[in-house]
Amino acid sequence: MMFYQRNLQVATGRRGTYEITREIQAVVTAGEIETGLCHVFIQHTSASLIVCENADSTVRKDLEEFFARAAPDGDAMYQHRTEGPDDMSAHIRSVLTQTDLVLPIANRRLALGVWQGVFVYEHRYHASSRKVIVTAYGEKSD
Amino acid sequence: MMFYQRNLQVATGRRGTYEITREIQAVVTAGEIETGLCHVFIQHTSASLIVCENADSTVRKDLEEFFARAAPDGDAMYQHRTEGPDDMSAHIRSVLTQTDLVLPIANRRLALGVWQGVFVYEHRYHASSRKVIVTAYGEKSD
Amino acid sequence: MMFYQRNLQVATGRRGTYEITREIQAVVTAGEIETGLCHVFIQHTSASLIVCENADSTVRKDLEEFFARAAPDGDAMYQHRTEGPDDMSAHIRSVLTQTDLVLPIANRRLALGVWQGVFVYEHRYHASSRKVIVTAYGEKSD
Repeated sequence: MMFYQRNLQVATGRRGTYEITREIQAVVTAGEIETGLCHVFIQHTSASLIVCENADSTVRKDLEEFFARAAPDGDAMYQHRTEGPDDMSAHIRSVLTQTDLVLPIANRRLALGVWQGVFVYEHRYHASSRKVIVTAYGEKSD
Repeated sequence: MMFYQRNLQVATGRRGTYEITREIQAVVTAGEIETGLCHVFIQHTSASLIVCENADSTVRKDLEEFFARAAPDGDAMYQHRTEGPDDMSAHIRSVLTQTDLVLPIANRRLALGVWQGVFVYEHRYHASSRKVIVTAYGEKSD
Repeated sequence: MMFYQRNLQVATGRRGTYEITREIQAVVTAGEIETGLCHVFIQHTSASLIVCENADSTVRKDLEEFFARAAPDGDAMYQHRTEGPDDMSAHIRSVLTQTDLVLPIANRRLALGVWQGVFVYEHRYHASSRKVIVTAYGEKSD
């Protein structure tokens, strides 16, 4: 049983979703975990993590529309607006989604469903990159 | 310290909540974990997991009403509608709830609060069954 | 590799957020985990956990306004209202946020981002205290 922890720097840029499934699998592979779990954590409060349908990109477009309506940018009710109209809405989107995810590992692979992908969801209009910590743990193969 | 991983097939059917607390406890019991954690993961993007009040069933009825209003089926804004009016709304509900949960184990039992139950939340109008992976890990008793 | 599990009693009181980052770090420190993870679980369905910006308190005020609008207290649609107007809205808020969180540990410290704090979010108007179970696990230092 062991822990294998690596830091990722995920280039984001504009508001939207950025798939990191392959990068996470690479950590699992490097850690040689046969059966176990993989934890993913984003060190930010205005970007977050989601597991989402990864085949049809209109799903993530519709999701973006949903959040744009549910937590409008520049809402008159926000007191926290020093960094711009996308600041407080980004924090709300972060709280409604995930800061951490735990994914199963079986036979050295992330045991995701056929249509599941893991995404960093950038909620700010403009960002450069986001820090993600991946920790794979479990039983090593012989 | 060990990992004990089992796959569950959860019969769902119609949109709604399906309690799986007992099935998860059965994995913990079979794995003989004394102190540790239990990870639950659903391999789908149109059904999800929640921890919710399990005594009064009106709580889950009201919750369903909430989501029906918050993420309406067949909303005109959705581009992703090939599988019907409940397709995109199901993905949104999934993102707003959980794809994975981690529950504490103490004294060989899930250490849930008195009113907490674990549920698969089926978001499609009609489904047959859903795949759930349960991984219990921790220290075994002597 | 070991598991170190402790129960916290978090005094809440009125609806709002209560930071518990230090209390969680104290468990990590006592457990002497060098590299690993820390699981936090709240044993309730009307209070929950969030990771949120911890520098500017207006963020949590705006977040509260958001939830007050998204899941209104005493909504006419609620059937579950025996415990008062904040009962069902509290369950909805709980489902939309987190019942459990997993945080990375590196070099004996919670590896949180600069602006991240961990909070118990009390959703009832009046409460006394909430039970939280913290489980730190990973590799001990030599």
